[in-house]
Amino acid sequence: MSELIDKVLAGAPRSVARAITMVENGGADAAGLMKAVFRSTGKATVIGITGAPGAGKSSLVDKLALHYKDAGERVGIVCVDPSSPFSGGAILGDRIRMATLGLDKNVFIRSMATRGNLGGLSRATVDAVAILDAAGYSKVIVETVGVGQDEVEIVKTADVSVVVLVPGMGDDIQAIKAGIMEIGDVFVINKADREGVLRTQKELEALLSLAHRPDMWNPPIIKTIATESKGIEDLSAAVASYVDFQRSNESALDRRHAIARWRLTELLRERLLADLLSRNGTGERLNELAAEIADKRLDPYSAVEELIQ
Amino acid sequence: MSELIDKVLAGAPRSVARAITMVENGGADAAGLMKAVFRSTGKATVIGITGAPGAGKSSLVDKLALHYKDAGERVGIVCVDPSSPFSGGAILGDRIRMATLGLDKNVFIRSMATRGNLGGLSRATVDAVAILDAAGYSKVIVETVGVGQDEVEIVKTADVSVVVLVPGMGDDIQAIKAGIMEIGDVFVINKADREGVLRTQKELEALLSLAHRPDMWNPPIIKTIATESKGIEDLSAAVASYVDFQRSNESALDRRHAIARWRLTELLRERLLADLLSRNGTGERLNELAAEIADKRLDPYSAVEELIQ
Repeated sequence: MSELIDKVLAGAPRSVARAITMVENGGADAAGLMKAVFRSTGKATVIGITGAPGAGKSSLVDKLALHYKDAGERVGIVCVDPSSPFSGGAILGDRIRMATLGLDKNVFIRSMATRGNLGGLSRATVDAVAILDAAGYSKVIVETVGVGQDEVEIVKTADVSVVVLVPGMGDDIQAIKAGIMEIGDVFVINKADREGVLRTQKELEALLSLAHRPDMWNPPIIKTIATESKGIEDLSAAVASYVDFQRSNESALDRRHAIARWRLTELLRERLLADLLSRNGTGERLNELAAEIADKRLDPYSAVEELIQ
Repeated sequence: MSELIDKVLAGAPRSVARAITMVENGGADAAGLMKAVFRSTGKATVIGITGAPGAGKSSLVDKLALHYKDAGERVGIVCVDPSSPFSGGAILGDRIRMATLGLDKNVFIRSMATRGNLGGLSRATVDAVAILDAAGYSKVIVETVGVGQDEVEIVKTADVSVVVLVPGMGDDIQAIKAGIMEIGDVFVINKADREGVLRTQKELEALLSLAHRPDMWNPPIIKTIATESKGIEDLSAAVASYVDFQRSNESALDRRHAIARWRLTELLRERLLADLLSRNGTGERLNELAAEIADKRLDPYSAVEELIQ
């Protein structure tokens, strides 16, 4: 274990991969590992990228990673793909993308998938980011598919959150509700060679003008064509300027505090459930009670009371 | 309380609304309510509808609800919008949609939003569906924005899951990863007057041909133009035929069991955390520890150990 920790802190990709698997699986090993690496975190810039499926997030992330790599940085990419709980799709996707990005010790890419019913994906993702940070990756990009609650939470833990849109969501930009607007520090209109860019931009500007940000930051709107590597430098400049802004801003502390509180709560929730289920027979009893609920012989609230007693 | 329960079981919309607020807030009242209504559930057909933002889910849900209403059914709609944790957007949206659907005791619409950090959105949504079921709504439609983990779980608790796509996701249909494919019992290509319908359909068929369903169901692909009410009858027929199929299928029991297990686990997780935080001083101590974590003076795993002791 202490050998693994040393290698992670030295930035060895294989050990980083093993460490991330460990936090995905959870348990005591993961806790020991995270305690050991925690003090070495806080140096990386963590960039969260979210947006609807089909917005071209993966291409954008790959090109942004290449941009940083070409500038001499080490880049970690964590893809959160909670929609694939059963399939090996995530792993296959990583291999395809690694082929694009080049097998290179300066770029590390990893998909996180949920393991079984116990959740913990958000916690594992945040831990994976911390491992990459401790391993000396100076930019860590967290890419989330979808705009669900967990994804929003994960993106909020980043230093800077990028929301990706595409033209032609025109009528439906309302679907990108206020919440996602509130988390975006930088907005990207990708596929900017498509029709309707101007309209999407106008609508986005109108929506942003209604938003109240406690830090008074005015989120820039960047146009990109990720497949042609266009606009990537603008994006990287916008990210850097938000990071600079945050550093000189009081609300940065509030944000860090809120993130820590959320992270602690997630961890606590997971741990409490794991502790309960590890007691003799509780897991089996849960299955029996679930069967009774399925047959409408028992309601779930009474079942919970029995399990807690 | 027993008056509220009687009115809910009699199907009074205002009492249903109050009951749903109660389960959103959680706590002992909610538990008492759910225990009381649980035995009256199981009659409604629960239809989960998910897909990317911009796919036109709301229009589709509204038109499907009108279709059922015109057929003499009582319809409940629960919209899960986890991306708007802070804004009043959800409530405003309900009012606009109620104006479209008509203020009518046979159509009930309610948006669920996450309340604070303690989560419980999935649990509250499933409870709201059970309340509508017990109140005699024969069709309950659960609409989720996005494709996050919670949304997938929520849609899985439905009797039939509908995944909505739009043409022009062409290159990016891969983004609708295998996981979302696995949960779809019926697929809809909405906005079917747009270019690229055939291509989207072919790609979807190709993807579906790779999927392994334990129940051997072959998910139909329905084309709709929700804004013009086109294809809504086809959709309703596809939903009905899957419900019939399920009824005669052994795997239905496995599904019900898995749903019950998930629901019980969610409830347990929420309850364990609430119990811990309700102890004297624990909430405050959690805030203090979060501040220490934010300052890198403490790692979250050690903080959890302190709180659990």
